[in-house]
Amino acid sequence: MPTAAGAVRPYDELRRQLREAATLGSVGHLLNWDQETYMPHAAAEHRAAQQEAIAKLVHERMTSKRIGELIAACETDPGVVADPAGIEAANLREIRRDYDRATKLPSDLVAELARTGSLAQEAWKAAREKSDFAQFEPWLDKMMALSRRKAQCLSAGAEFTEPYDALLDEYEPGATARELEAIFNPLAARLSGLIRELSRAPGKPDDAFLHVQFAPSKQHEMGEFVLKAMGFDFASGRLDVTTHPFCSGMAPGDTRLTTRYRDEKFTDALYGSMHEGGHGLYEQGLPKVGASARFGEPLADSISLGIHESQSRMWENLVGRSREFWSWLLPHAKKFAGGPLDRFSVDDAFRATNIVSPSLIRVEADEATYNLHILLRFEIERRLISGDLKVRDVPGEWNSRFKQLLGIDVPDDRRGCLQDVHWAFGLIAYFPTYTLGNLYAAQFWETIRQQIPDLPAQMSRGEFGALKAWLNKNIHQHGRRFKAGNLCRQLTGKPLSADPLMRHLETKFRSVYGL
Amino acid sequence: MPTAAGAVRPYDELRRQLREAATLGSVGHLLNWDQETYMPHAAAEHRAAQQEAIAKLVHERMTSKRIGELIAACETDPGVVADPAGIEAANLREIRRDYDRATKLPSDLVAELARTGSLAQEAWKAAREKSDFAQFEPWLDKMMALSRRKAQCLSAGAEFTEPYDALLDEYEPGATARELEAIFNPLAARLSGLIRELSRAPGKPDDAFLHVQFAPSKQHEMGEFVLKAMGFDFASGRLDVTTHPFCSGMAPGDTRLTTRYRDEKFTDALYGSMHEGGHGLYEQGLPKVGASARFGEPLADSISLGIHESQSRMWENLVGRSREFWSWLLPHAKKFAGGPLDRFSVDDAFRATNIVSPSLIRVEADEATYNLHILLRFEIERRLISGDLKVRDVPGEWNSRFKQLLGIDVPDDRRGCLQDVHWAFGLIAYFPTYTLGNLYAAQFWETIRQQIPDLPAQMSRGEFGALKAWLNKNIHQHGRRFKAGNLCRQLTGKPLSADPLMRHLETKFRSVYGL
Repeated sequence: MPTAAGAVRPYDELRRQLREAATLGSVGHLLNWDQETYMPHAAAEHRAAQQEAIAKLVHERMTSKRIGELIAACETDPGVVADPAGIEAANLREIRRDYDRATKLPSDLVAELARTGSLAQEAWKAAREKSDFAQFEPWLDKMMALSRRKAQCLSAGAEFTEPYDALLDEYEPGATARELEAIFNPLAARLSGLIRELSRAPGKPDDAFLHVQFAPSKQHEMGEFVLKAMGFDFASGRLDVTTHPFCSGMAPGDTRLTTRYRDEKFTDALYGSMHEGGHGLYEQGLPKVGASARFGEPLADSISLGIHESQSRMWENLVGRSREFWSWLLPHAKKFAGGPLDRFSVDDAFRATNIVSPSLIRVEADEATYNLHILLRFEIERRLISGDLKVRDVPGEWNSRFKQLLGIDVPDDRRGCLQDVHWAFGLIAYFPTYTLGNLYAAQFWETIRQQIPDLPAQMSRGEFGALKAWLNKNIHQHGRRFKAGNLCRQLTGKPLSADPLMRHLETKFRSVYGL
Repeated sequence: MPTAAGAVRPYDELRRQLREAATLGSVGHLLNWDQETYMPHAAAEHRAAQQEAIAKLVHERMTSKRIGELIAACETDPGVVADPAGIEAANLREIRRDYDRATKLPSDLVAELARTGSLAQEAWKAAREKSDFAQFEPWLDKMMALSRRKAQCLSAGAEFTEPYDALLDEYEPGATARELEAIFNPLAARLSGLIRELSRAPGKPDDAFLHVQFAPSKQHEMGEFVLKAMGFDFASGRLDVTTHPFCSGMAPGDTRLTTRYRDEKFTDALYGSMHEGGHGLYEQGLPKVGASARFGEPLADSISLGIHESQSRMWENLVGRSREFWSWLLPHAKKFAGGPLDRFSVDDAFRATNIVSPSLIRVEADEATYNLHILLRFEIERRLISGDLKVRDVPGEWNSRFKQLLGIDVPDDRRGCLQDVHWAFGLIAYFPTYTLGNLYAAQFWETIRQQIPDLPAQMSRGEFGALKAWLNKNIHQHGRRFKAGNLCRQLTGKPLSADPLMRHLETKFRSVYGL
């Protein structure tokens, strides 16, 4: 439909307004990143006020009456909706979804969530350091109360079976706690079986490779070397050091990764960097910059956290913990380490980085036990939201369920329920997307292996270009055009299932453990 | 005057609104700091959009009709203005000044200045690297056009003799180009005389001390050590590395310094850190945090850039280039350097850091020639604003005037007119405040020496607490309560004059040069 000369199409005006709001939103991402990396401690209180101010402004813009009118105008514009399967219709569908969700949240709640998240994060840091849950408890209590209120607001006029689903829908659109439960519980049972099987295996791998001394500055150089090989663009990004590794796709041309180094167990930082690098490649692959840039629109945004996590897990586990990867990296790693790795073979590296052993810290867990850490968090946060579990009972519940699932005693809260920052930030219903990521990664990987038959040979030469191109083409460039479940069916021909992940884990670990 | 129960006093409401606007403004400061320190290059364009958005929001808030009404209401509120010499009346006087200036600038101009400043800064970086003025010329041209427009807007209804004064008034309230000229020209003549005298002196100091190899990481440790001794609070601040050293008192509890390191001439970085540290102590001494915090109000803001610079110059030159300072620092410096400084005496250090020698780079210039670098910039920018000089003629004019003033040929624009970032940022009429800082510092110092007779002995023990306390009490804590000229008269009993600076320079350098 032609528009009057000089008149701006509602769709173009809508895009412009979303870009403006997202520009302010990207300022909030910088505030977050800075708080996690370089901000002096004494600035914490003012940082909360800054976060609150920006969050409020973004929310006001995203929920303005004008945006509502523009969306309504577009919904009757054949130029946008004529082809319901088309790109613009998909964009509009997702814009509507965001608007409807955002307008359900009162502005003061959004501001309070931002402010509390910023302050609770500092309280969490202090409490974690001293392993003192009591210090963090009032903040977690407040954050849970706010999250329950948020779930209640989002449930208005929607058909969520339980309040938790309203929160989950933010991170994994359309997913429900019951569905997750239906996949996670059998997965946990199969994993427990595998873990038991491996614990009785004759050929336990040696972990000496992991315990060499490796200077943090050299680890950092190696991390950048690997990220460059993966195709991460350092002109549009960086790698810093922080307590809790993360990736912030904060703005067009600006994707920032963080990791953490210790003198020993250098593979933690390596896999941390590769993991965040996988997220970073997704962010850099979204159409945020260039001629056809759509920054601020759903088509330049990631589908869901589960799909996001599938990217990080793929690089961390399916690439980084493969024999082929080590046959490429080991000679380089020996140079970076400057001596202490010289006595190890590719087989040593491959086996040592595939040891299955129940342990305390989620981000350092192996591929098999990892998902049990997630199940624990999913159960606890679901019960906190339903009101079935009190915040003060979290440590006790954590420790007893941890013992059931992983068979070990939690010595202190620092290595127990205080280890992750998510709840302090208000990220409730976020954890399950980590296991969804593992499931999606394994299922995509089977398809990729079919479509790039030469991939193992390429990986053993440090060539990741074809893999990155496949991900760019099939996943990244589409933004939120397809829903996660549909994308999975399109790419793999099947709905999401635990089978590919279990096939991958059983095959690899039985081989490593000589079963 | 009592207010109705529950009613908010206009003055309190005004303070709240200013604090809110300043909170957004502080977000803009973080955007600046990040751009100068860690931002990936590809993010530059989006960063400009972020800067523009924030600058526009801040300007809208600062110029809102509501703030205008609140100011007017306060101006008839005896509770505020009853005592014209009182704190609240001073605060209101400065709020009025800011409001009147801000409302003269149209919102689109403010946004364009912010956006252009952000982009021009990137263009400057690239042009400087390649020493290619042509690459920067269109940006400088645009920035000068915007600055002339800004001067024109600010001149409306004001009594400025020339447009330059309207810009100068932002950085040094009440100062005029003619007044500066009347101090700067005779100062330059006296300095030239001193420089000639020293160039013919028999006892030229040896510079070997400056040319030892000193690892940047160790220089950084020493810089932090000195800053801690000065009283800079690292829980409320940090020190980073950047191309152009600066201090950003970006927010309550958040003052960030930057410096730069080379393997040789370690004193550049040392004095850079002390200089920015002097600014940092001023920022940390302003009443921005705590129970009586006035963040966002003039009383928590610095008086002028000249006074700000007096703080940095005092620590850099009057403290850092004294014999007492070196008798304290040298033994520590020897440890940080790990060997190469061992053969030098305190006298070697003192003499080497007081060599007067015309050179190309302003930030590395000695105390005597430094002010000639400023005179040059002042003359050029004043003529650029009046239209008497074209942007394309800047390199030629720079080089010929530089030769006249300092007697040396400028080999390339990188070490000539491209060396400073200020003009790219739109900071026109900013440079003269550096020389004002030198003048104020020397004049305050004479008073301080009288009031703290023991200061030299304290400095030789690395004790700077009494000096810092004097500055906190007499300068920092007042914010903008007093005008620069009044403060100078109150503290020193005299109006600003070049005499104390010349006394200091002549005494010290004649002693160093054996005259």
